[in-house]
Amino acid sequence: MTAREQVEILDGGAALALTGAAGRLRFHAVWLRDNAWDAATRAPGNGQRLITLGEIPADCRITHAALSGGALMLQFAHETAPIAYDLAWLNENAYDRPAGHSPGWTAPWIETWDAGLMAAVPTGDFRALQSDPAALRAWLFAMRRYGFGKITHGPVRDGALFDVAALFGYVRETNYGRHFEVRTEVNPTNLAYTGLGLQAHTDNPYRDPVPTLQILYCLESSAAGGENMVVDGFRAAERLRAENPRGFDLLARYCARFEYAGSDGICLRSRRPMIELAPDGEMIGIRFNNRSAAAITDVPYADMADYYAAYRRLGELIDDPAGEVSFRLDPGESFVVDNTRVLHARKAYSGTGTRWFQGCYADKDGLLSTLAAMEQMKGAAE
Amino acid sequence: MTAREQVEILDGGAALALTGAAGRLRFHAVWLRDNAWDAATRAPGNGQRLITLGEIPADCRITHAALSGGALMLQFAHETAPIAYDLAWLNENAYDRPAGHSPGWTAPWIETWDAGLMAAVPTGDFRALQSDPAALRAWLFAMRRYGFGKITHGPVRDGALFDVAALFGYVRETNYGRHFEVRTEVNPTNLAYTGLGLQAHTDNPYRDPVPTLQILYCLESSAAGGENMVVDGFRAAERLRAENPRGFDLLARYCARFEYAGSDGICLRSRRPMIELAPDGEMIGIRFNNRSAAAITDVPYADMADYYAAYRRLGELIDDPAGEVSFRLDPGESFVVDNTRVLHARKAYSGTGTRWFQGCYADKDGLLSTLAAMEQMKGAAE
Repeated sequence: MTAREQVEILDGGAALALTGAAGRLRFHAVWLRDNAWDAATRAPGNGQRLITLGEIPADCRITHAALSGGALMLQFAHETAPIAYDLAWLNENAYDRPAGHSPGWTAPWIETWDAGLMAAVPTGDFRALQSDPAALRAWLFAMRRYGFGKITHGPVRDGALFDVAALFGYVRETNYGRHFEVRTEVNPTNLAYTGLGLQAHTDNPYRDPVPTLQILYCLESSAAGGENMVVDGFRAAERLRAENPRGFDLLARYCARFEYAGSDGICLRSRRPMIELAPDGEMIGIRFNNRSAAAITDVPYADMADYYAAYRRLGELIDDPAGEVSFRLDPGESFVVDNTRVLHARKAYSGTGTRWFQGCYADKDGLLSTLAAMEQMKGAAE
Repeated sequence: MTAREQVEILDGGAALALTGAAGRLRFHAVWLRDNAWDAATRAPGNGQRLITLGEIPADCRITHAALSGGALMLQFAHETAPIAYDLAWLNENAYDRPAGHSPGWTAPWIETWDAGLMAAVPTGDFRALQSDPAALRAWLFAMRRYGFGKITHGPVRDGALFDVAALFGYVRETNYGRHFEVRTEVNPTNLAYTGLGLQAHTDNPYRDPVPTLQILYCLESSAAGGENMVVDGFRAAERLRAENPRGFDLLARYCARFEYAGSDGICLRSRRPMIELAPDGEMIGIRFNNRSAAAITDVPYADMADYYAAYRRLGELIDDPAGEVSFRLDPGESFVVDNTRVLHARKAYSGTGTRWFQGCYADKDGLLSTLAAMEQMKGAAE
């Protein structure tokens, strides 16, 4: 707290204003009471809120406010004991600021990329990630930042991909199993199991919720071709927005449809936009997959031609070599992609030699939680 | 096809119009070419699209169109062979219609409910669900319709809940394990593991993607109290919208925040709205949990008072007994909720006697796919 910090009650106690180094920040009484951190409001052990909003009067009023050390002491009209608020916490959680994000903004911890990332592919050493928390934290940080990471020097062993998942989270089992084999099949139920090249895509857009992480682990790789490639879907969408804001808006505003019914007993369908925005415009997801795109029927006739033009252009931007990071995986190497953002592709490969990958899905909640907990521990230790 | 069916080429071949019993429906040439079902466009076995949009010219034009039996034969300028389209498929997938959904619309297979559902709780018999496809289909249909279903006469056996998940899909493993035990603990990491009553809530809103199904399975139930209750969050949101459209809009337009950091190494956070709408206004999710709601910081000061009033009112509607379906589970009984829609609550229970539930998460993709595949088989058999 600076000496200049001041507090002022507003609107008869329905709000207050704090004035300090960060400027003048207003807070509503009901928000303050709901966000108190005293032991009667939040369980001391696990931080869960013990009260419901219904226990706070609708006409919640502050009758007295005072600054004391790093704390703001508040007396509410409906209670006898004052509650202390940490000023630093209030500054961090202040909401009295101009809005003003433009559609397609991304979170501050995200950095979009192009082929230039080839020179600095985020890579972790399998054993270091297992044994060295600093190495794991750095790799997870890169995963959150770039939506993609490679892991080298892992074991060449059936199921080793589960050890990758265990570094940060949990496998998402699906109708494809806890994991799936990616090698040429004679009667494939999915084109992924052929030697065909696959255009860059996100996996399983027909699934809702979509698997938010994918792990692909190389066990054999002697066939010619079959290189892997990744491309940042957020960057492609940003490029689309820069050259054609209306096209970006169309792909975000209307739902596409996806479907997969390639196996008996399976009929997966989703209705979600190719570019998913949070209600305030944050870009939070890309769905792009020519193989499983179903007929788009939620775009009105008047917008369909422009929608298709934008869809085409997004595909061109995704296919643009200027955005591609490509690599060949050797046995024991793997890569992880944020399947809500980074598209992956495979070049065609020949039938001579072998190519055997194992893949599985996992989710970002575990990865981001593991990273956030490590960052908090690091912060506490410093 | 009726005798009156006609086809007309529009805009120099960039579109066509079909006129028949369904009225006049226009389709763009590029949409038609992209959605062809010939064997060169879609893999005959699994239905996956074999071409990318880039392989269709941007100026895709129809040069000749003719009706023949139930088919529309189209010749595209850039190709030599004509392609046949099924007229029934075109009618089903037509997009030339007025938009006009209002915000908060729900899918046609969803029916919102209130306490009146007490008289007809969707219930399946465990053994029948395992052995009789018609019984399973009926129960899954009710799950999709009401977002909630009960199962009776299951085994009283540790892990029996996995047999419930296997009826339709796959367990979503999380930091709580493949399943979690719900009984009173001495030093609980989560208030769910105490005897406290819990306000109706959706589970794990701090997780993204949220688990879309929850299974709760009763193994012991001799403690006084502890009744379970469910309430339709979509109905509560519909009521809010009817009495306060601006409040509904605020809860849909701004993101709330949720957090759980009750265990070592765990720090789960999300930023999602309490009422989630698809870009075209379809209601697709409710997140409501007083215990894990973090400070709401994405609502500007000018809207925060009204936002909080709407949040309060939504909670009152959720707590309204007029919307509650409550029941007591006996050992071997379980219930499943669509965790994106239906909130569940627990009344407080005493420390005497025992109450032991096992819970796990799963996802709707598997459930909806299992149902859709059964419906298609039924349709094909009829």
